[in-house]
Amino acid sequence: MFEDTQRKEIEELGEFGLIKNLTESLQNKVPSTIFGVGDDAAVLGEGTKKTLISTDMLVEGVHFDLSFHPLKHLGYKAVVVNLSDIVAMNGTPEQIVVSLAFSSRFSVQAIQELYEGIRLACEFYQVDLVGGDISSNRQGLAISITAVGTSEEEEIVYRKGAKENDLLCVSGDLGAAYMGLQLLEREKQVFLANPEMQPDLDGFDYILQRQLKPEARLDIIKELKKAGVRPTSMIDVSDGLASEIFHLCDASNVGMAVYELKTPIDPATVTAAEQFNLDPMTCALNGGEDYELLFTIDQKDFETVRKMESVSIIGHVTQKEAGKVVVTKNDNQFDLKAQGWKHFG
Amino acid sequence: MFEDTQRKEIEELGEFGLIKNLTESLQNKVPSTIFGVGDDAAVLGEGTKKTLISTDMLVEGVHFDLSFHPLKHLGYKAVVVNLSDIVAMNGTPEQIVVSLAFSSRFSVQAIQELYEGIRLACEFYQVDLVGGDISSNRQGLAISITAVGTSEEEEIVYRKGAKENDLLCVSGDLGAAYMGLQLLEREKQVFLANPEMQPDLDGFDYILQRQLKPEARLDIIKELKKAGVRPTSMIDVSDGLASEIFHLCDASNVGMAVYELKTPIDPATVTAAEQFNLDPMTCALNGGEDYELLFTIDQKDFETVRKMESVSIIGHVTQKEAGKVVVTKNDNQFDLKAQGWKHFG
Repeated sequence: MFEDTQRKEIEELGEFGLIKNLTESLQNKVPSTIFGVGDDAAVLGEGTKKTLISTDMLVEGVHFDLSFHPLKHLGYKAVVVNLSDIVAMNGTPEQIVVSLAFSSRFSVQAIQELYEGIRLACEFYQVDLVGGDISSNRQGLAISITAVGTSEEEEIVYRKGAKENDLLCVSGDLGAAYMGLQLLEREKQVFLANPEMQPDLDGFDYILQRQLKPEARLDIIKELKKAGVRPTSMIDVSDGLASEIFHLCDASNVGMAVYELKTPIDPATVTAAEQFNLDPMTCALNGGEDYELLFTIDQKDFETVRKMESVSIIGHVTQKEAGKVVVTKNDNQFDLKAQGWKHFG
Repeated sequence: MFEDTQRKEIEELGEFGLIKNLTESLQNKVPSTIFGVGDDAAVLGEGTKKTLISTDMLVEGVHFDLSFHPLKHLGYKAVVVNLSDIVAMNGTPEQIVVSLAFSSRFSVQAIQELYEGIRLACEFYQVDLVGGDISSNRQGLAISITAVGTSEEEEIVYRKGAKENDLLCVSGDLGAAYMGLQLLEREKQVFLANPEMQPDLDGFDYILQRQLKPEARLDIIKELKKAGVRPTSMIDVSDGLASEIFHLCDASNVGMAVYELKTPIDPATVTAAEQFNLDPMTCALNGGEDYELLFTIDQKDFETVRKMESVSIIGHVTQKEAGKVVVTKNDNQFDLKAQGWKHFG
């Protein structure tokens, strides 16, 4: 199609590098574009009530494996992943549109099952499915969802608002969804090696549920609002704590310190990580798919947030020069590395 | 995953049957959902200025063939297809979000080329690209775009407003994009059979351009607005005239008669159709991808619209009982059949 003599592989740039490369020359020209590329959702609209919009595509063989992701769960999860981005702006999700592409391997019943999961998520989060598209695909299943939400302008929380001495908080616990995936992949291999083996999933309900049926933390932003706390910056944990800390720091032009001892990891996650010879903190930092909220608060809100059962205060915001560091149990300190995803290659 | 003893193939239902099956039980519950599934775009928002939203996914090997769709053109077309849906509601497109999934076969340069086409379309239509997602894909390229637009509530034109004795109008001409595709596919086969053959595309610029670089008819809705004409119903021609007439009739609960002699078909389309032993009117009815606007107007607007160079009055609205009919050159009459697409199977 064009000269490709110095072909550059996507891998060389990585996900974030490629996105930056593609979007850095974009300039918003439409008056109703308040904030474009660079946060969990775009912010649109001319009145004080803003429209939030975010999109995500899930691809078979990359984001899910139908040998252990049931279609109904998958439909539910595909919605949640998108709603989570609206929630991470401190917004209320209201509608979704859904595009599906699938090969003839899928029956009507299979697509109905997927849609049932989508419908259940819409019901649970009180969101309307207002449009979409279906198409065939040469191979596999792809699900593209765009979520629409709203927020009063002054309530929107961006990635860019963290300031020195703010406290770093996270909802729920981390690393469980990743361990759930490890377990499912192991049992799949066992099954492939010997189809008569029954999967050994006893006692792992929690981490499996975290992988197969994550939730968007709409409850957390409601709780914060009720308590009068407006985070100074926020993001959802889709790619792992480390990667999200990078995003908050880069957007806010600050550094952060996170404490291993304060990082919430469920005992079931720890047990599973030990079985797999993995360090639980590494799972929390680089695992992803937890869809918890990572946010910063002003110190004045410390007492209020400290009492919230579903929120942990895990660190604080520093000067940019101090970098992004983890303080280990033994009081050692190391620099964070953002892994992002590495689907290519 | 579940009992599949009476597996039903997607083909049995067809595209429209499947969409109906999946969406008929949906009920909108959110106050800001004004209109959900069932038109070119959903209508959202609580004020008088409404948000329009529409989504479409283009899949390699189904909607495009990279051996003759250059990536830059493809990016442009993917945007246009979505903007056209906003225009078909009589709205102004303002933003898009773009999700891409592609295999490692694509280089950084290839994706940049695709994005360049997306950027050019955004520039031409004065639309901002405000977000997106990129992901790897096991095979091929998929492009999912969601377009956002606005319209004052009283200016929105739905599919459902056509009434008996309204006049049926279409912008531009029909069937050219389909003939462009036939030509490209033929030359591809010739090339595959003998790579030394040069493609014979002389004199076919117009139909090629219609296939490779379609435009959304934002100019038409501006012209109508300026002339004080508000269509009573409207849709864009993506699947062919026949299919769109079905949509307008079903939504408006009316019948329609369309006249072959009045249907605008470019001479280049006629010439190409003759070469392929195709009936030009069949190409117009079932070809698709023209992205022209099909709309109805009240008879009072006849004199105004008759003077518009880019609009043809091709028929009229009848009672539902009269059906959907084509009146041929020879004054014969036959019932229309909507083909939709048949990607599955």
